[in-house]
Amino acid sequence: MPACSVPDAQGGRPAPLVAVLGGGQLGRMLALAGIPLGIGFRFLDPSPDATAGALGLLVVGPLGDETALVHVTEGAAVVTYEWEGVPAAGARLVAATGTPVLPPPVALDVAQDRLREKELCHRLGIGTPEFAVVDDRADLERAVKELGLPAVLKTRRGGYDGKGQTALHEPRDVERAWSELGGVPLVLESLVPFDRELSVLAVRGRDGATACWPLVENHHDGGILRRSYAPAPALTEQLQDTAERLAGKLLDELEYAGVLAVELFDVQGELLVNELAPRVHNSGHWTIEGAVTSQFENHLRAILDWPLGSTAAIGVNAMVNCIGAMPDPAAVLAIPGAHLHDYAKEPRPGRKVGHVTVTATDAGELRESVARLAGLPGVDVPA
Amino acid sequence: MPACSVPDAQGGRPAPLVAVLGGGQLGRMLALAGIPLGIGFRFLDPSPDATAGALGLLVVGPLGDETALVHVTEGAAVVTYEWEGVPAAGARLVAATGTPVLPPPVALDVAQDRLREKELCHRLGIGTPEFAVVDDRADLERAVKELGLPAVLKTRRGGYDGKGQTALHEPRDVERAWSELGGVPLVLESLVPFDRELSVLAVRGRDGATACWPLVENHHDGGILRRSYAPAPALTEQLQDTAERLAGKLLDELEYAGVLAVELFDVQGELLVNELAPRVHNSGHWTIEGAVTSQFENHLRAILDWPLGSTAAIGVNAMVNCIGAMPDPAAVLAIPGAHLHDYAKEPRPGRKVGHVTVTATDAGELRESVARLAGLPGVDVPA
Repeated sequence: MPACSVPDAQGGRPAPLVAVLGGGQLGRMLALAGIPLGIGFRFLDPSPDATAGALGLLVVGPLGDETALVHVTEGAAVVTYEWEGVPAAGARLVAATGTPVLPPPVALDVAQDRLREKELCHRLGIGTPEFAVVDDRADLERAVKELGLPAVLKTRRGGYDGKGQTALHEPRDVERAWSELGGVPLVLESLVPFDRELSVLAVRGRDGATACWPLVENHHDGGILRRSYAPAPALTEQLQDTAERLAGKLLDELEYAGVLAVELFDVQGELLVNELAPRVHNSGHWTIEGAVTSQFENHLRAILDWPLGSTAAIGVNAMVNCIGAMPDPAAVLAIPGAHLHDYAKEPRPGRKVGHVTVTATDAGELRESVARLAGLPGVDVPA
Repeated sequence: MPACSVPDAQGGRPAPLVAVLGGGQLGRMLALAGIPLGIGFRFLDPSPDATAGALGLLVVGPLGDETALVHVTEGAAVVTYEWEGVPAAGARLVAATGTPVLPPPVALDVAQDRLREKELCHRLGIGTPEFAVVDDRADLERAVKELGLPAVLKTRRGGYDGKGQTALHEPRDVERAWSELGGVPLVLESLVPFDRELSVLAVRGRDGATACWPLVENHHDGGILRRSYAPAPALTEQLQDTAERLAGKLLDELEYAGVLAVELFDVQGELLVNELAPRVHNSGHWTIEGAVTSQFENHLRAILDWPLGSTAAIGVNAMVNCIGAMPDPAAVLAIPGAHLHDYAKEPRPGRKVGHVTVTATDAGELRESVARLAGLPGVDVPA
């Protein structure tokens, strides 16, 4: 529990209070979007250094701790989360007190288990890479025979940013993969020969209204998102429609409220779901400057039962993550259309500590500005 | 002095700290723009309820108090202010310690005295309404004869939002005007038959680089700004050039850094300076969503010696003040392109408690959206 409280963002007036489970950069950016709307924030995070703490009351404690949950959610209009690893049991505990938890806790159950995620997609007729359940070594042998190689072995639970997975290219990789990951519930997935990785950011209000931002093209390296381009280059109306239809099915099925990120493989125009994130998402950060309404604002509007804002893009945009280090602000801000987002986190190798959004009116201008980021600390862009 | 401190926005890393004299909505919006850039904030304000206090450390004390000034500015990279009424002596006291105070304190001297303001303009060949110094009743009689009527009698110091001024339409108004305002240094100004009120928001970096946002058309009522339209309707390149030239002269003469707002009368295409505000300004709030770089971000870039960002407008925009009351968020957010800014201030009659920016792609769309604000509490728009 904190020793003293931060002044309420609302002064004397009654104002909606949003409690956020998790106090990282996503919570921070939710608050930056919500404070202008008159929303006050509380965060629950295990770390006293949680970066969102600068923008609201920070309760320090485990995300599943009952006392901490009561403290952070008391009097909140709605409770949300900025990490899909939040214990679903804790979320249900809060929901049982009558305070809405949105997105609904079932979204955590689904997103925390790769098997449930894939089963949900299949039930809704949404494509995913082929997969097989692997609970023991014999399952793995069978699955490799059934799906063929290359394939990726993944833990059903707890994987993120490329952790908890390993690729199999030839039969002798079975041994290594099993020794790396065996012992917990796994799934084997076909390695899809995708043309590119995309994501669709979708939002659904409590009234059932839905909207999607234009598809985003994502570039990963070492399992970590490095760059996003939005709208995705060469985006067709048909591809956007396909993505919106599949996102809409997921949102409706889960009776969702808030932003849902769906990571996709684009295989010659066919979209396969790779992963769901029931929260605002790194591939949606470009919407702060690049869309009429940001993912952060629309997430808040959705969970507070306020009307959704337009998800239309403004111009063309790139989002470049700052990983392990922050570039010099003056160097970034000298680049036309560059917008700096420093998460105020201690830099550590592999840690996302900020991002730069570059806005432009056309692809050529965008390419030029992005190229000027090359060589700056923390960013990874083609020179 | 506060009983406890808010966590530094920067976590473990060294980060520029900006001290702001004044902790109202302008300070609040400076912080909302600066926190993503990795800037930490401290505010000095006489009120413990100062709304910027939610976004940084709030020191409660008089703006000219030496102890409070030392406390709030210690360790700051730069000191700025969000109100032109800040005592210039206090600002000079801080500057004498070696911490830059920007905009420079001379800008306070000028902006706090209508006579110095006008004399500066005249020295630079910049037009203003005709005026005469009024120190006693005889001066007033003389000035009325010299300038003719109608005219406006204004206190040289301390006027804002229509306070400290009164109009004279016929000779018998002299008596009333003198009894209202006499006894302090005054100026009489010709009442200019202007076509409209405009303002130019200008910014100058510490390196001397300058930029201006497109001219803004402002609608006042009862001396309080109600609505701004940007870019100003029917804005010509010539008018913009004229405004940029006069703003540039002022910025250079004052060896300025930061945002300067120049309020103007448009008299058949001739621009006369009405008033200067050496700070971010209500008529520049539209830049948060309506320009590539907001006035708040560019003010911070300028005073921190970082490169200025583009001041280009995105589409067409209207800013509508919320005065005395806040409209229901859900009602505002249902309007296409509407962006809500709640200052978290206790509503009182005549008090600016928030604003709504409406963004649109063309004037027709803008007009439709603005009209939908009509009738909501706190806003004053033509139905």
